[in-house]
Order: sequence, then C-alpha cells, then structure tokens
Amino acid sequence: MHIGTIVDRSLTPVEMDGVKDAYISILLGNEEGAPNFVMRQFRLAPGGHTPQHDHSWEHEIFVVRGRGELMVEGKFFSLQPGTFALVEPGENHQFTAAEDSELVFLCIVPRKE
Amino acid sequence: MHIGTIVDRSLTPVEMDGVKDAYISILLGNEEGAPNFVMRQFRLAPGGHTPQHDHSWEHEIFVVRGRGELMVEGKFFSLQPGTFALVEPGENHQFTAAEDSELVFLCIVPRKE
Repeated sequence: MHIGTIVDRSLTPVEMDGVKDAYISILLGNEEGAPNFVMRQFRLAPGGHTPQHDHSWEHEIFVVRGRGELMVEGKFFSLQPGTFALVEPGENHQFTAAEDSELVFLCIVPRKE
Repeated sequence: MHIGTIVDRSLTPVEMDGVKDAYISILLGNEEGAPNFVMRQFRLAPGGHTPQHDHSWEHEIFVVRGRGELMVEGKFFSLQPGTFALVEPGENHQFTAAEDSELVFLCIVPRKE
C-alpha cells in the first residue's frame, strides 16, 4: 500500500510545446506500485493551460480546487471543484485555468508498460 | 467524452455483509464509455464503514471531503481531504468515517470485462 497527501508532493513544470504555467506530480504510479493506472495531479496557474493535443489513451479527471475550462473536440466545458470528466482516446483536448483562479485536478491514465 | 459533477449524482446504498451507512455512485464506468478503469464515489455517513475484505484488484483512492480512517492489513491511516492511497491487490482493507464527520472519497478500480 502507499498513502500520501497532495500538499506534500513536489510539482514539476510540464515541458511540452503549447503549455503555459502547468505543473504535474505523480501521486500513484510505477514507483508507488500501481498495477494498471496512474493517478497524477495537475496544477495550472491562473491563465495557464495544457497543450491542445490528442493521443491514443483516455483521461479520467476530477477537479479538486479552482476553476477553469476543458475543451474537447472544439466544445468548451466549465470546470469547478467536484467536476469529473472522461476524455476518450483520440479526442482533441485542452485544460485552461480561469484568469483569476488556479486549477488543480487529478488526471488518471492507463499505465504505460 | 462525458462530464458531470458529483453533487448531481444520485447515490445507492452499498449492500454487502459488514457494511454500515455507505453509499456509492459510479461516475465514469461502462455506461459513460470508460475503456480501462472505473471512477466511483463513496460517501460514508459519520461512523459508517465499508466491509473489511480483500479482493484480487487494486483501489486508487482520493479523499474529497471529510475525515476518517483506512485500515490496510491491520494498520490504520488517517484520511482527510487531499489524501490519496493505493490499496494493492489482495490487501485486506476497510474505510471508516469519523464519528463526527462524513467521508467522501473517489475509488478507482480496473474495469471488469
């Protein structure tokens, strides 16, 4: 078993084309012994965003704190604490924090073998 | 894609031997198109608990609200908002809400084929 608290985890800047003020920490992954899927935490500074992109695996997300927006295939959905969402494999998507709020969310993905 | 908010989801009592005042809702599962893993929400009323049991699949959990305790293999860990944990396959475990607090947490499991 592994247990922790998100406030204790150090964050790493996300280094990708098209990203702005986004930070990541792995909560439950290979090092913690997760067999099938990986829980990550993302934090976006106010106005920050992830890249607009797509890939062959899904996201399951849950908003912990703050406000922002999720774009999926050109449609925009508002994010607030308690929002959960599935981004399906192949769907173009982008997460953006509100200009006056950071955005903290969990993003769970399949484990890469 | 699928999007929702936990406050909008109706909860169903958990019907298992050894359970007390525990409620579940599936947030992202088969009906929502989740390909590999299922996000569920659990709510335990003050003093409520899940059964003490074990099974062949893992849990990845994240505490959304309230306080309580997680027992894994006879050891006890405190739960508060922001706590995340991995319960590995085969580990005996039980979730219990504090006597004066409900406990709301996400529990993600592999999808059953």
